[in-house]
Amino acid sequence: MPTNTWNRHHILSLADFTTTEYDTVLQTAASFQEVLSRRTKKVPTLQGQVVANLFFEPSTRTRSSFELAAKRLSADTLNFAAASSSMTKGETILDTAKTYLAMGTDIMVVRHREAGVPNAIAAEMDRLGVRVSVLNAGDGQHEHPSQALLDLFTICTLIDPASPRLELLKGKKIAIVGDILHSRVARSNIWSLIASGAQVHLAAPPTLLPKLFAEYISEQIGGKEQEAAGDKLILSSPSSPTPHSPLPTPQLFLHWQLEPALQNADFVMTLRLQKERMTAHLLPSLREYHHLFGITSTKLQLCKPNVKVLHPGPVNRGVEISSELMDDPEFSLIQSQVTSGVAVRMALLYLLGSGKA
Amino acid sequence: MPTNTWNRHHILSLADFTTTEYDTVLQTAASFQEVLSRRTKKVPTLQGQVVANLFFEPSTRTRSSFELAAKRLSADTLNFAAASSSMTKGETILDTAKTYLAMGTDIMVVRHREAGVPNAIAAEMDRLGVRVSVLNAGDGQHEHPSQALLDLFTICTLIDPASPRLELLKGKKIAIVGDILHSRVARSNIWSLIASGAQVHLAAPPTLLPKLFAEYISEQIGGKEQEAAGDKLILSSPSSPTPHSPLPTPQLFLHWQLEPALQNADFVMTLRLQKERMTAHLLPSLREYHHLFGITSTKLQLCKPNVKVLHPGPVNRGVEISSELMDDPEFSLIQSQVTSGVAVRMALLYLLGSGKA
Amino acid sequence: MPTNTWNRHHILSLADFTTTEYDTVLQTAASFQEVLSRRTKKVPTLQGQVVANLFFEPSTRTRSSFELAAKRLSADTLNFAAASSSMTKGETILDTAKTYLAMGTDIMVVRHREAGVPNAIAAEMDRLGVRVSVLNAGDGQHEHPSQALLDLFTICTLIDPASPRLELLKGKKIAIVGDILHSRVARSNIWSLIASGAQVHLAAPPTLLPKLFAEYISEQIGGKEQEAAGDKLILSSPSSPTPHSPLPTPQLFLHWQLEPALQNADFVMTLRLQKERMTAHLLPSLREYHHLFGITSTKLQLCKPNVKVLHPGPVNRGVEISSELMDDPEFSLIQSQVTSGVAVRMALLYLLGSGKA
Repeated sequence: MPTNTWNRHHILSLADFTTTEYDTVLQTAASFQEVLSRRTKKVPTLQGQVVANLFFEPSTRTRSSFELAAKRLSADTLNFAAASSSMTKGETILDTAKTYLAMGTDIMVVRHREAGVPNAIAAEMDRLGVRVSVLNAGDGQHEHPSQALLDLFTICTLIDPASPRLELLKGKKIAIVGDILHSRVARSNIWSLIASGAQVHLAAPPTLLPKLFAEYISEQIGGKEQEAAGDKLILSSPSSPTPHSPLPTPQLFLHWQLEPALQNADFVMTLRLQKERMTAHLLPSLREYHHLFGITSTKLQLCKPNVKVLHPGPVNRGVEISSELMDDPEFSLIQSQVTSGVAVRMALLYLLGSGKA
Repeated sequence: MPTNTWNRHHILSLADFTTTEYDTVLQTAASFQEVLSRRTKKVPTLQGQVVANLFFEPSTRTRSSFELAAKRLSADTLNFAAASSSMTKGETILDTAKTYLAMGTDIMVVRHREAGVPNAIAAEMDRLGVRVSVLNAGDGQHEHPSQALLDLFTICTLIDPASPRLELLKGKKIAIVGDILHSRVARSNIWSLIASGAQVHLAAPPTLLPKLFAEYISEQIGGKEQEAAGDKLILSSPSSPTPHSPLPTPQLFLHWQLEPALQNADFVMTLRLQKERMTAHLLPSLREYHHLFGITSTKLQLCKPNVKVLHPGPVNRGVEISSELMDDPEFSLIQSQVTSGVAVRMALLYLLGSGKA
Repeated sequence: MPTNTWNRHHILSLADFTTTEYDTVLQTAASFQEVLSRRTKKVPTLQGQVVANLFFEPSTRTRSSFELAAKRLSADTLNFAAASSSMTKGETILDTAKTYLAMGTDIMVVRHREAGVPNAIAAEMDRLGVRVSVLNAGDGQHEHPSQALLDLFTICTLIDPASPRLELLKGKKIAIVGDILHSRVARSNIWSLIASGAQVHLAAPPTLLPKLFAEYISEQIGGKEQEAAGDKLILSSPSSPTPHSPLPTPQLFLHWQLEPALQNADFVMTLRLQKERMTAHLLPSLREYHHLFGITSTKLQLCKPNVKVLHPGPVNRGVEISSELMDDPEFSLIQSQVTSGVAVRMALLYLLGSGKA
């Protein structure tokens, strides 16, 4: 596997991922996907190494996925769950991380309710001059890189199972629908999709996709607002990796209605809606949300005929997506995403861990 | 081990278990019991396979037993505990199960407060055409097959350690005492004991053993009420596996007093009393319950001299059973049951898992 | 490794540890420390054995340390956490322990809020004539032997990394500062340090170091009050292991001010302050506590120039110790303690487990 091209020590954000890095992850994950199809799904790659899952925010799905990925690489795993931990005893997060460092942890997989915690732990590890790697497993509303990478892997392997790579998405129209404002998944996906040269269309009610978000994104990608007419906002990215285009093409579109985002889309990424949003008066009702922005078979007819739908899970059936569509293997990639998750996380742990030889 | 005779893909209920299946489980467990007596208690049988413990209802004892069984077969284990899970995020049970399926789970061990959940998951897996096996680790008041099988193994190995088999129980008198109505353990035990040709005597206060229960059982075994006089009800099973008997012999007896059930009994199975029953006014007091239906050394004198007592645990000392009797190795099989539990669960995981080669 | 000198079956208290036992633990831990510096940090020593962590009191740090130690010896681990367990169902502690015994546990690592629980479990195992070992991982305010042993190992390897042994501490001045009264760590440390021939100086406010404590200790070590003047109390131990001294030298000093304890100290052991102490009116305020008994760089100037500071963690920064001092690698041994913890716990599990061959 192409680890000689891998230099990144922590995986905290996709904002500065290079095409080479994306492709290395995709190809490494593809080779692990092959391992997972064998009867004995283990490899001895990380034997004797320790992967600590530091989940300051509870999670079953992502933690199980990382735990299984680590076990299949033959690593030893430690699970830290905030509820039953010293956090209640007043220890700081960095002290907790340093305790796991001192025990001999090689890779820390960190989730926290607050944005920036994995970065802070990584900065502290670097300051201490130790070889521990930090992998962001979701921090506040900031980023969730492994989720975006598994989404990318799921889409790319669908297009070319033998050789998933970033350029496969060039020119594809991808809609991201739902609670963009609060979604770390959306943020990470935006970086990877823009890097691929895809046309990214965000769609949400104005309360969940404020214009300020456009300014934030625009600033991040060094782009500028190109057009803001009626219910649409278009951003272009002058520094986007589309070297063969003499002029930057518009890549990010913001919509406050669903239909223009779905029109001729190749992929529709739906986002989980936290039910708390409604109590915060950001939404009139789940029923109305589903009526306006929920994905159904009928609405999918606006898209390309072979459109596929993704969701990071867990799904509120009948809210973000209709129950019938979710279970339709012709359109839904939701199960593939979970399977891809183990392979992609094996790849990430492998790429971080094999540098420690 | 005799796996070539094994065709069952899920273990959900003992209601339709065949004699061959019982004997296969007993013999396989006997060979694992032997493994457990060695210094290195592991075998590589399920290496690379994933056993997911999906415990939607909390449990320490049963989960630890399954976890240890899986580890001794060298499987990787994933633990799901409802409390810290996505269940609180509104995901359905089937979606949770499908997530673990997509991660690559080979065997799901499922416990749930509601009857029928393991069956529903198994039906969904079959509908999807996947090879995942589901093992019911206790569903509501329905069944707890692995507990009944370990009870059976405990009794049979006591009679013939070298060759435990179902027919050893033929004609034995076995009393099941306690909260029959709410006990999934009792229901599963009734199937295995009736299949063995034992004489099964149920004893409980009327609130915990209503006549409706007799009708339910009678219907299930295709039997009929033979006699209902005073405080006793006798059911016979025309389809019971006693081929050498020209006429069906009575096999299931219901008593609303303890003494007739204990009279000349070979084994006494006590059941856990949920203390909540008392607050629901089904019992006057724990003290009175113990006085009338609690098992003590004195009451055991009604039984055969070498009678043995079982309890699925955890025991309320001084309620279902006297503290002194519980600790008496001459009569109590409670510790043997726990030990048998690991061997029997290894057997079940092995029988389900080895078909996936 | 020198296991042929090891006869102890349980590790419950350091009160009766012999010099040979201390030295065996230190040397065994040193050899495992070397293993931990390799890339593959696992040894197959306890393969097939089961280590059950029975943590009736929640803990992340100690449980993770024991779990990692067990995994690096290739043992299978079972984690029991009281919150989600049968304890809520009314089962007694001994019954829980016997359940884990019956499942095949080889070593039980026990933590409980009440003093004496590990001893009670060990006594029950001995009564039953089984080979299971019990390791006290902290019981109430009684003892925490593995913590004291890792403190000892941390100090001794600092003095002589190649050959850590008890006699290295002879004549060293060691201050133990903080909530002595409620600290199981302090109690275990007092035994090991007195055994080493160190001069042990306790310092705390009178509410956290009552004179009754002195009587308790004095009685335990068979010593007597030698001097009680003003704010100081001196105990000598006639049975202390200092054979070359014709007369027992004073070894344990109690101070109700910090400064005399720090004066020329070689090591300062700080203790965790439970914030509940303040609500119980044992302390005026955390701020005042820190002012009087908190360790800072300035106060350390009273000690020997190369003094080192320990803390069992988790630390309340700015209470027991200043934040700046805690992070100063020149003075703080806190991270070394955590690392030593894994090596020492591997040693303890190895010494208990290898006798079961």
